[in-house]
Parts: sequence; C-alpha cells; structure tokens
Amino acid sequence: MKVIVTGATGFIGRQVVTSLQRCGHEVIGVGRSQINLFDPVAVDDFVAAQKPKGLIHLAWDTTPGVYWETPQNLRWTAGSLLLFESFARHGGRRAVVAGTSAEYQWGDNADLDESKTPLVADSLYGVSKNALHQILAFWAQGVDVSLAWGRIFCTFGPHEKEGRLIPKLIAQLQRGKEFRFDSGSLVRDFLYVEDLGAAFAALFESEVKGAVNLASGEALSIREIVTFLSESLRQSEKVRFDVLPDPVGQASRVVASINRLTTEVGWTPEISTRDRLGQTCSWWIDEMNK
Amino acid sequence: MKVIVTGATGFIGRQVVTSLQRCGHEVIGVGRSQINLFDPVAVDDFVAAQKPKGLIHLAWDTTPGVYWETPQNLRWTAGSLLLFESFARHGGRRAVVAGTSAEYQWGDNADLDESKTPLVADSLYGVSKNALHQILAFWAQGVDVSLAWGRIFCTFGPHEKEGRLIPKLIAQLQRGKEFRFDSGSLVRDFLYVEDLGAAFAALFESEVKGAVNLASGEALSIREIVTFLSESLRQSEKVRFDVLPDPVGQASRVVASINRLTTEVGWTPEISTRDRLGQTCSWWIDEMNK
Repeated sequence: MKVIVTGATGFIGRQVVTSLQRCGHEVIGVGRSQINLFDPVAVDDFVAAQKPKGLIHLAWDTTPGVYWETPQNLRWTAGSLLLFESFARHGGRRAVVAGTSAEYQWGDNADLDESKTPLVADSLYGVSKNALHQILAFWAQGVDVSLAWGRIFCTFGPHEKEGRLIPKLIAQLQRGKEFRFDSGSLVRDFLYVEDLGAAFAALFESEVKGAVNLASGEALSIREIVTFLSESLRQSEKVRFDVLPDPVGQASRVVASINRLTTEVGWTPEISTRDRLGQTCSWWIDEMNK
Repeated sequence: MKVIVTGATGFIGRQVVTSLQRCGHEVIGVGRSQINLFDPVAVDDFVAAQKPKGLIHLAWDTTPGVYWETPQNLRWTAGSLLLFESFARHGGRRAVVAGTSAEYQWGDNADLDESKTPLVADSLYGVSKNALHQILAFWAQGVDVSLAWGRIFCTFGPHEKEGRLIPKLIAQLQRGKEFRFDSGSLVRDFLYVEDLGAAFAALFESEVKGAVNLASGEALSIREIVTFLSESLRQSEKVRFDVLPDPVGQASRVVASINRLTTEVGWTPEISTRDRLGQTCSWWIDEMNK
C-alpha cells in the first residue's frame, strides 16, 4: 500500500518508516523540508498527486519544554484537520495518528486505560490532541476511513533530542561529570523507539479503530532508570539523588494498560526495557566517539 | 472597541452587527466576499492590518440539512483555530464564538445546562464545535484572551433561509396551500434572531467566560408554533397534523437553562416568543408583497 508518513525524519518517524517498509509498504516520508503542513493548498496538491491509501500522521511541534503550551498547538490541529480532509477526498482508506498519554487525566495510580480513564487533559498539547481525535474519529465513520489513534507514552533510544533526560545523563556520566538529581520517584512507562515504530506499523496493519496505548506497560521510576544507566556506565558514584527539589505538580505515576495493544492489535514488546536501555547506552557511546 | 464579526452578512450576523454598533463599537463585518477564512495567509494579513481588540466569530457552514455531517466541519474548525491564533498574536483581547445546542447530549427531558449536561454530541457539527471550544478555552487562559462561547438553540425571524420551517409554513399558507405535517410533538427552544443578536452583544460586553446558552428558555412544541402562526394568518384549517410520520431519532425536548445568561450576563428576552412569532409573520408577509 502507498503510505504517507508525516514527521518521517523525526525521532519516532524514522523508526515508523523502517517498520512500514519491512511490511512491504511503499512509504512516502514527509518531513519539514518536503512539505509545509501549514499550507493547505500545498498539502492538498501533494495528496492529490500522491493519492495514498494509507497515512500515518506523526508531525507536531515537539520542542522540549515548549510543546506543552505553545499556541502552535492550534496550527498543528488545524493543519492535521486539513490534511485528513484532503486524504479522504483523494481516496485514503487507513490512517493512524500519534496521540499522547497527556490526553488522559493523570493523578490516580491506576494504569491508564483507553476505555476507562477520563480524558481530562491538563495541557494545551493534551487538550488539542484529544479534541483532534474526537473530530477525526466521528468524521472517519462518515467518509469510510478506518482510523486508529496510537497514544505515545515516554520514548527513548537512538536519535533522541540531546537535551532530554537519557541522552543528557549518558553524555554527562561519559564525561565523568557529577549528575545531581531529585528523588527520581516519578514512575513512568518507557518504550524503546524502535519498538514504538514497530507498534505503529502493527496498529496500521491491524483493523483496530480508535485509541490504543502504544507503550511497554512496565512501571519504572526515573530513579531506577538513572541507576541502571549509571551502573551500566560504571559511574554510579557520580549520581547524587535527593539533592535537587522534586518537580511540583507532576503526576507520581503514568503507566499504560497495554491490554488493547496486546490482545486486539496483537503486538507486545519482546525485549525488556532494561535491555533496551543497555542498547541505548551503547548507541550513545558509539555516537559520542564518532 | 474595534470588533471583527465573521459571518456578518448572515441571518444571525447582521443582527449581531446592529447590536454591537448600538453599544458604540466600531464593527468590521466580514462576510464570504470580504475574506476567505480557509486561507490562513489572507486571514493573518487581514487581522494584522485591522488589529481588532474584539472578535465575534459566527461564520460556519450552515447549509440546511447538510451542515450536520459535511466534512466542511473540519475546514471550519481549522479556519477558526487559525483565525484565533492570529487574533491573539495581533493584540486581540475579548472574543465570543457561536456554539450550538448540538454540543450537548440530547435525550433526557431536563433543561440543557452549561455545567451539568454532558457534552456528548451526536453529529460532526456538534463534535467539531465542542472540540473547538475545548481547545480555544484552554488556549485562551495562556494568551490572556477573554473568551466566551454562546450556544445557539433554534432561531427564527427576518431573513431566515426560505427552505426552513417557519418561512416555508408562512409562504405556503399565504398562498392558500395546505400544510401537511407530522404530530409536531417535538419541543424546542426558539429565540427571535434580533434577540439573539442582542444576547451575543450582551455576552461580548460582559466579562463572562466559558459556555453560555443564548436562548429563550421557553419550551414550545412545533405543533404550538405551527398552530399559532396558522391562526395569525387565519389559515388554521389548512394545517393537517398527524398526516406525515414523525421523524425518527429526534430528541423529544431540547430546551435551554438560561440561568447563566440571566444571572451572570444579565440579559433576558423582554418580549415573548409568541409576540416575536407574530412580528415574524408580519415581516414575511411584507417581504412577499414587495
């Protein structure tokens, strides 16, 4: 099938493209340099020329620290709506969109569940993604597009932005620097980026519609992750926990139920998060030695 | 204050413009011929040139029978998001948007209430408007825009589209034609369009934020309205109820709570719906005799 992937050159997108190609699809990757998703005429011309049957829409503002509240969320929502309207009009049939764990109400300690957890987002990013999903899910029924919505949790692995926790930790410890930290008590759900790419491809290949958590379902504290990585690098004495104040207003536990992913999509990560963290460590060390 | 009104030449828009002008505002009316709201560059250029402090956004697809499910709802949602992003960036401060009773879950017989009734829409139109409101309400807090959302119920009066119930009924009875009808048992909340224009202006003038029902709060059955109009025209013997089947899947009662409008905005219709129906009848008769 001919499939357009937006955000194809990004951290997650490059893995999605690889996984789709392994499934035998003809992938048309779209990055910032190929097409401006804020230009509805250019987007419609592109979709009209390509006439893809499939679409995986990942592109969004992901500037660390900024994307949660930037007004750019309005432009990405608008651009996404126009992209889908073009996609259906030019014969599109199957689509998957990147959603986010931030669409859920965080705060109690239960696993976040597609059918049980309330959708009460606490950020413009989460509100926008959830609103986009509501519109697209209702619209898709009327235009005969099969639409699934893959909710992403925490992601790590090769090519992650260097300012983010795991690359920053590895880089500092490799340079022999001390790493000062808070208690590290927040518990999150981490999935290796290659696995996330495979999960997106599996969701696309399935006939599942609606929201599906794309996650590991493993609960790991930041402290466990930092400890594991520092031990792998034999630098655990350089990590100082409990010297910075804990962040205020952060949910203590954000972990997915992966029941839908496992039973309906039929995909589960085969390698543990710890082993994937080890691989990630090796990748960054190779990268730094280049 | 300089205020842009979109949909200014429409059935509701022309009344909103008049009411705002009475409040002393400098109104920049925008209709289809002035600006294409689907062209983000043109919209941004227009807003940058005008730099309005106020915005009342009414424009949307309202083609009778079509607007509920048309994919154009995606384009109107996108255009609205981009319009607001421009509005705030160029110094906008106070905005009111046209919402709809169709954002609410219909079906039980209680008055629809802004804080109590679940927002579970059953049409692409209702879903899109509600999703747009969720995004804009969250976004507005972060960019210091004061945003209110006026939910419209049934509207009637001068310049209504001729294919709709009240103009059609009056036209047929004036020509002495029989008017065949179902039981007319559906109960709705009707507001005269001039009053709706005044309600929009009052909401704009207030400091109220969030959703407010702009309605009469009067429960009238379609049968009562048809009977009243046919009696005004002395043609009641031409109306045949119970000869057509009742529509399937329509909520039996859609009536607003106007508590927020009355107590917080401080506006209530002064003239009864029956008197406004009489005025409407006279207006159409004059119009037909022109």
